[in-house]
Amino acid sequence: MAAENKATNITWHEGHVTREERAGLLKQKGCTIWFTGLSGSGKSTLAFTLEHALVQRGRLAYVLDGDNIRHGLNKNLGFSAADREENIRRIGEVAKLFADCGVLTMTSFISPYRKDRDLVRALHAEGKLPFIEVHVSTPIETCEQRDPKGLYKKARAGQIKGFTGIDDPYEPPLRPELTIDATSTSPQEGAALLLEYLQKQGLVS
Amino acid sequence: MAAENKATNITWHEGHVTREERAGLLKQKGCTIWFTGLSGSGKSTLAFTLEHALVQRGRLAYVLDGDNIRHGLNKNLGFSAADREENIRRIGEVAKLFADCGVLTMTSFISPYRKDRDLVRALHAEGKLPFIEVHVSTPIETCEQRDPKGLYKKARAGQIKGFTGIDDPYEPPLRPELTIDATSTSPQEGAALLLEYLQKQGLVS
Repeated sequence: MAAENKATNITWHEGHVTREERAGLLKQKGCTIWFTGLSGSGKSTLAFTLEHALVQRGRLAYVLDGDNIRHGLNKNLGFSAADREENIRRIGEVAKLFADCGVLTMTSFISPYRKDRDLVRALHAEGKLPFIEVHVSTPIETCEQRDPKGLYKKARAGQIKGFTGIDDPYEPPLRPELTIDATSTSPQEGAALLLEYLQKQGLVS
Repeated sequence: MAAENKATNITWHEGHVTREERAGLLKQKGCTIWFTGLSGSGKSTLAFTLEHALVQRGRLAYVLDGDNIRHGLNKNLGFSAADREENIRRIGEVAKLFADCGVLTMTSFISPYRKDRDLVRALHAEGKLPFIEVHVSTPIETCEQRDPKGLYKKARAGQIKGFTGIDDPYEPPLRPELTIDATSTSPQEGAALLLEYLQKQGLVS
């Protein structure tokens, strides 16, 4: 390595870069926006619409969803009760890391059990990081009619067992920060409501 | 919710924000800088020095280390062979997500086994994300003399079993992107070398 690497312009700092320093850099405050709702309710569409809207405004947003989690970090988890719980726990921990890094982090998973979501909320509270639970409350009739992945059809035919809303419960949040029903709210309108919420909370300007 | 939320200024986009869009926003390319080396070799000091240098330059960097991983995502893992492997696998998957999000991601773990590190390298190659393996090659004599956490002393006394370098092997990388020996290179000098490497690779400007 060349001898001229003297690093004279690098200031030595003990410890970590603070959350505030990263927030100043990004001009936003990291948080987790947790979408929960039935399969086909419109969680991912809403998340990706908001992601685009935020990035258009120069803000850093990122979506954790089945595509990048189930085939990666959680590929060694199945659908037993214990594995479903561990699935949400790991997603919650990763979202917390992203939020700590300053990212406007969105998660798009059915996450049907209140207990699991409340655990993730508690993790964020412990880390003093905002947790915004968004209930995508589209009724099951609409979700089943849409059935974008053909999963309801398979569940009704008994080809999928333990399908949320059919033969496994969905426990709606008791006090979500926001509730959005995709029957009456378009993805664009939903994203605008969320953006307004983030602005009101001082998370983005 | 107010009726004026018409979202007329939000453009609808199908699919995800691309990696290129986020890179343009952040003016950097996401990557994983994987520090590997003995306990006490100076991995974390180097990582946090580089993190500060990058953030000072307006770049988004984040360190995954024992503090934010072992007490969170991986708190249900112990030190069995299988758990050590799963520990590194999960860290690799999370680093990959951060890199995909555009973050200059650093990991600071002993990660003693070549097989586990090569698996993480392969994960990144699969995702077309840069993976920079940095061998912090400080000799064990120096590490043991420093012994910042008193772990070598405990390992020598038999109070810790399977301690890397004492009664468990450390497998040095065969072709690391960079090798830094903290005996002859200060953290500032090491961070400068790394910064120069990132610039040469076109990951930061």
